[in-house]
Amino acid sequence: MTGQHDAPILAVDIGGTKILTALFSPEGKMLAKDVCPTLADEGVKPVIERLCSAIESMLDGNNLKASQIGGIGIACAGGIDSGRGVVVTPSPNMAGWVDIPLADIIRERFKIGTFVVNDASAAALGEHRFGAGRGVNNLVLFTLGTGIGGGIIANGELYLGAIGAAAEMGHMTIDDNGPQCGCGNTGCLEMLASGRAVERDAVKRISQGEKSSLTEMAGGKAESVTAEQVGTAAKNGDPLALDVLSRAAYYLGIGMVNVVNIFNPEMIVLGGGMAELGDLFIGPGRKMVAERAFPISSRIVRIVTAQLGNEAGVCGAAAFALDRSKRGTA
Amino acid sequence: MTGQHDAPILAVDIGGTKILTALFSPEGKMLAKDVCPTLADEGVKPVIERLCSAIESMLDGNNLKASQIGGIGIACAGGIDSGRGVVVTPSPNMAGWVDIPLADIIRERFKIGTFVVNDASAAALGEHRFGAGRGVNNLVLFTLGTGIGGGIIANGELYLGAIGAAAEMGHMTIDDNGPQCGCGNTGCLEMLASGRAVERDAVKRISQGEKSSLTEMAGGKAESVTAEQVGTAAKNGDPLALDVLSRAAYYLGIGMVNVVNIFNPEMIVLGGGMAELGDLFIGPGRKMVAERAFPISSRIVRIVTAQLGNEAGVCGAAAFALDRSKRGTA
Repeated sequence: MTGQHDAPILAVDIGGTKILTALFSPEGKMLAKDVCPTLADEGVKPVIERLCSAIESMLDGNNLKASQIGGIGIACAGGIDSGRGVVVTPSPNMAGWVDIPLADIIRERFKIGTFVVNDASAAALGEHRFGAGRGVNNLVLFTLGTGIGGGIIANGELYLGAIGAAAEMGHMTIDDNGPQCGCGNTGCLEMLASGRAVERDAVKRISQGEKSSLTEMAGGKAESVTAEQVGTAAKNGDPLALDVLSRAAYYLGIGMVNVVNIFNPEMIVLGGGMAELGDLFIGPGRKMVAERAFPISSRIVRIVTAQLGNEAGVCGAAAFALDRSKRGTA
Repeated sequence: MTGQHDAPILAVDIGGTKILTALFSPEGKMLAKDVCPTLADEGVKPVIERLCSAIESMLDGNNLKASQIGGIGIACAGGIDSGRGVVVTPSPNMAGWVDIPLADIIRERFKIGTFVVNDASAAALGEHRFGAGRGVNNLVLFTLGTGIGGGIIANGELYLGAIGAAAEMGHMTIDDNGPQCGCGNTGCLEMLASGRAVERDAVKRISQGEKSSLTEMAGGKAESVTAEQVGTAAKNGDPLALDVLSRAAYYLGIGMVNVVNIFNPEMIVLGGGMAELGDLFIGPGRKMVAERAFPISSRIVRIVTAQLGNEAGVCGAAAFALDRSKRGTA
């Protein structure tokens, strides 16, 4: 049931808003890709049906039968047990994904080896094999989006921990007096440096009477300000937006200092929408790493932005399936 | 220069107060051990001379020539570049150890492959091979002493990071408004949960007029209260000692929650003098992991105390030399 060797790999990245499907050569070159909406709020079953349809149409469109591919790799948000291929706990955007045996479902449907990995870990593997981290043995990736995820490459290999749930970088406490996080922990990095944190901070300050161009950008509805708008306003010199972003950047810096001291990595890779703000958001953290982390580690670490954009996850899922199908652990 | 294969290994653990030397079979069984004082304040050269004498007398005492051993493994406190075998930055107890090419010095003296590794990383490897972590693929060790160090086993291997400086668990910020640490960072775990933190907290509170049996235990000199005395007083029910210890235990809990979310380890191993206080110090953190960490990770992690005591470092140094000499990277 592990499919042909030296055969193409089919990979999927299931996100809160879209399902990205792609076909890869056995060498990891992307041959084709397609995208469809997740419509996660319709529930688990309809999403799995859309996933199966996406896989079928990718096969059909490339004149392939399932038996002609080497394996299926799936990157999925949430707490993943990679050994069993189960989505154990859902990400905030995918309610209902509790103990879903995703690998078994897809494997039984297509009779082909199927491998499931957390999406941020997949992104780290993608960047390691095909992107910013090629040739780097030890790197930590942060996905800086609405929330904050992470992925770890250790001694040249993807590090997943005991069952696949490692690298929750967004959920380390960096301020034990900080706000309560939805994850059950307190003062998590995600509560202080994510896109959602930036939005919450901006909305709160505007609602307390502070003036900002953001109010007009949000059409007068200050409560609907987005992190993207805060980024744009900051680039245009809006003092409140600059201040909100600089607070988040400070906390990101603390998170990176921790990672440098804990991992002594050659590289930190920053991906996700917030990373696209560039030096405005990343610069302060770079400086903090230089000032606060152990010099033996800070002087060698390179802090870079991701190269694969929203394809990192699907590329990593392909690499994960390639690796696992070679090991014969379907 | 890599010595004989299937030959005994000589291992040393250089600490702030003593040098522990031991001889190991090629299978990693300890055959003999000896100890001498470090007298670190005499400076680097005298310590290295004592180290060489300790190695010589271990060889002589076992009727061995240096050419008959398979390699020398050295565990050393401080920031270690394991690839080059250099002590880059000193631990607080070993002033002057800056850019000391320890592997080269010992290798030239004894004409035998020599390998240097940070002492807490060595302890993690020791516990993994011979102690609490046998058969465990992913574990994180905390050394809870005057300071707090760490070691990481990832995917069944010692994780050292880019050059050997990884696993500074004591120097992750867990309270960004916390006290300034000597390392240059702020609110480090070590400033809040180490033996030194416990002493500082007890001394401060007594000097502010709080009553405690510690004052009498310290012979009236409250400023000389030790962490050990705080532990004893707490066991005897002294309210101030209990409160001081419970604060430190709370911060240790935060550090462990972070490690569980970041590493999804099968096991956390707690070593060092503070770990010997047992549930009084470890219990609250165990509870916090259950309450605050991701359930997918918290429900599988075992939090245990180390088994090898002060021999963990020298055992790990032996394993490190065995591994490296097999790879032929002297």
